[in-house]
Amino acid sequence: MTTEAPPPGPDPWNTPGFRFATCPCGIKPHHRTDLLLVAMDPGTTVAGVFTQNQVVAAPVVLCRERLPQGQAQALIVNSGNANVANGPQGMQAARTLTQAAARLLAVPEDTVFIASTGVIGEHFPVERPLAALPKLVQDLSSQRPWLQAAQAIMTTDAHPKLARERFLVDGQPVHMVGIAKGAGMIHPNMATMLSFVFTDATLSKEVLQQHLRHAVNQTFNRAIVDGDTSTNDTVLAFASGKGAVTLHPGNSTAMTAFATALESVCGQLARMIVADGEGATKFVTIEVTGASSQAHARTVAATVAKSPLVKTAFAGSDPNWGRILAAVGYSGVPLQVDRIAIFLDQVPIVAGGVRAPDYQEAQGAAVMAQKEITIRIDLGSGQERDTVWTCDLTHEYISINADYRS
Amino acid sequence: MTTEAPPPGPDPWNTPGFRFATCPCGIKPHHRTDLLLVAMDPGTTVAGVFTQNQVVAAPVVLCRERLPQGQAQALIVNSGNANVANGPQGMQAARTLTQAAARLLAVPEDTVFIASTGVIGEHFPVERPLAALPKLVQDLSSQRPWLQAAQAIMTTDAHPKLARERFLVDGQPVHMVGIAKGAGMIHPNMATMLSFVFTDATLSKEVLQQHLRHAVNQTFNRAIVDGDTSTNDTVLAFASGKGAVTLHPGNSTAMTAFATALESVCGQLARMIVADGEGATKFVTIEVTGASSQAHARTVAATVAKSPLVKTAFAGSDPNWGRILAAVGYSGVPLQVDRIAIFLDQVPIVAGGVRAPDYQEAQGAAVMAQKEITIRIDLGSGQERDTVWTCDLTHEYISINADYRS
Repeated sequence: MTTEAPPPGPDPWNTPGFRFATCPCGIKPHHRTDLLLVAMDPGTTVAGVFTQNQVVAAPVVLCRERLPQGQAQALIVNSGNANVANGPQGMQAARTLTQAAARLLAVPEDTVFIASTGVIGEHFPVERPLAALPKLVQDLSSQRPWLQAAQAIMTTDAHPKLARERFLVDGQPVHMVGIAKGAGMIHPNMATMLSFVFTDATLSKEVLQQHLRHAVNQTFNRAIVDGDTSTNDTVLAFASGKGAVTLHPGNSTAMTAFATALESVCGQLARMIVADGEGATKFVTIEVTGASSQAHARTVAATVAKSPLVKTAFAGSDPNWGRILAAVGYSGVPLQVDRIAIFLDQVPIVAGGVRAPDYQEAQGAAVMAQKEITIRIDLGSGQERDTVWTCDLTHEYISINADYRS
Repeated sequence: MTTEAPPPGPDPWNTPGFRFATCPCGIKPHHRTDLLLVAMDPGTTVAGVFTQNQVVAAPVVLCRERLPQGQAQALIVNSGNANVANGPQGMQAARTLTQAAARLLAVPEDTVFIASTGVIGEHFPVERPLAALPKLVQDLSSQRPWLQAAQAIMTTDAHPKLARERFLVDGQPVHMVGIAKGAGMIHPNMATMLSFVFTDATLSKEVLQQHLRHAVNQTFNRAIVDGDTSTNDTVLAFASGKGAVTLHPGNSTAMTAFATALESVCGQLARMIVADGEGATKFVTIEVTGASSQAHARTVAATVAKSPLVKTAFAGSDPNWGRILAAVGYSGVPLQVDRIAIFLDQVPIVAGGVRAPDYQEAQGAAVMAQKEITIRIDLGSGQERDTVWTCDLTHEYISINADYRS
């Protein structure tokens, strides 16, 4: 039950203090991997950000309950069933699982965190992960576990999502690895989808929480696939303290490096979620500048990102830019329409609120045909800005979601 | 230039005081009908409700400008080009058209109303409708004009949309006919899509405006296809005064009959728009009851109606009802989750915020397979209620909108 020694040589993915095991426990059909157990060394601090949906999964209730004490020694994640709307039975199932893990790992129950993702409202078959736990505990290992861990939490994701950062404090390395899942029901509302970030730094739960909240707002909350906010959104960060570095809030250089690394890991994962958006073929960055507040900029960008008509225009590579202007117009943000400018990459489309005088449709069509597109919307009303990431809306989204469960 | 005599016999569509002409003027390709002219007898009063989008079409600006004087003698509507974001040129085009119609009809320019629908942001080729106007004026007729009028204003609509009502006041008939267009970019925000309602009653512009605003809120504002609010949304009502009945606000029985008829015509048209939603195969009524306010009920219903995941579940006939509960949860309305009940038609799905104890998936599947579905969501928080109408989200919506302009 002690941490294995890290492998020799500078493995950039090596993040001491965490051991992993995965298996198929039978929640997903076809013997697909659907259960992840992470064991953490004593002293690991934890921070979390959760969905703002008022209907929440049982695991979210349990995590919120346990977060204040700030210590984590295990994480259980299942995919295939979201354990939502199962009432007291659903809560009991989540508790039973964490109790069993606590007993098998000989750790306090309230240091066991849990997350679920999958279909909402189906009976949660707790006996299946419960039966799988003893073997999972035996299998725990720190040997390059990331890919399997990321795969175990996938639902409609086409690709596993992993990201890492490494930085030095006084010549000593800090390691950070994140995994995430998410492809649909993606809409920023404090925390979106499941993501878990692991670092070997030593830092307090309060500092970890503060940095996680900021990073989530700058990253996951900028990712929009369809505008549906999940009942299970959970981002948890764990700091094992098993690396060489202790981060004190007083050391601003080191804290800045940590914040940058955390935002980088979360940002990479958030972009991967959008790129893997259900049926997506294009990655679209929407930058709003010249806003009177960052909140206004975010609202305008999110409104454009959620517009089915804008998203289908991307899918069709159709420079039907009037739909972008229409979405800006119904965002609810106070506008001076005659100051609005819109660019597709570098091509000016709208100037002074109307079609740019020199715009040629061929220019717009060339940009819309790209795999990655940046729309910049300048509101001409101030100095604030914000960015969201989104994808196109394609036939494949319909196919995936019209028949998700079968 | 005088009104022709109505045909003999009780034609329920007969609404004296209006003459119609349509033609293809070349804005739409393939010689499709795209221009409608309506001439109205002197004394016709007018009321209007327009989009709340801050980016508005030139015709909307012009109509708002002319509405206060309250008299209408003509209406010009083109489809195929929305005349939005064309700057001073777009405004000039709209003015030029109404000037020409005023001259040809020998009526004051400010009694000519105008509406456009189609692609946003494309140059408006004013010379085409302008060239067509003289012949249109010659062609004006009151002989069963409704189907052609409804067809002339279609864009992506699969079907023309007409509705009528007739009621008696002191034994004398009041006639009312409405036409509408709309299939995409449909989201309630005061007025949605184009619709024009014609009645032969005599009533003041103030009373007409008050009743129109109420009817729109009860009908068109309940129709959601995709959540995109158009830049061109316009509902105009015209009262020619050429029938036998004068409606005074003091005659509450007659006014109630008028309000009921107006709401009926608008409601029929709004339901037709949803049923004709781009790619729609199902008509879904979402009733929210037990809310603490009607606004809360509307917000919850609209949130469910806009959820791409709920709409694709309808398309797939998948009773994946957890998505409905999730959408209720992120509606932003304060909830007592453990009081929420949800029914698919008569089948209880959720009770006390969790899966209903006796729910069997086969029951849900049977309802979801229907062409018409009612979802009732009881919030258990009060006595207020509201309803919206929506449709499923299918492959066909993507096909239509990924390639709308070609």
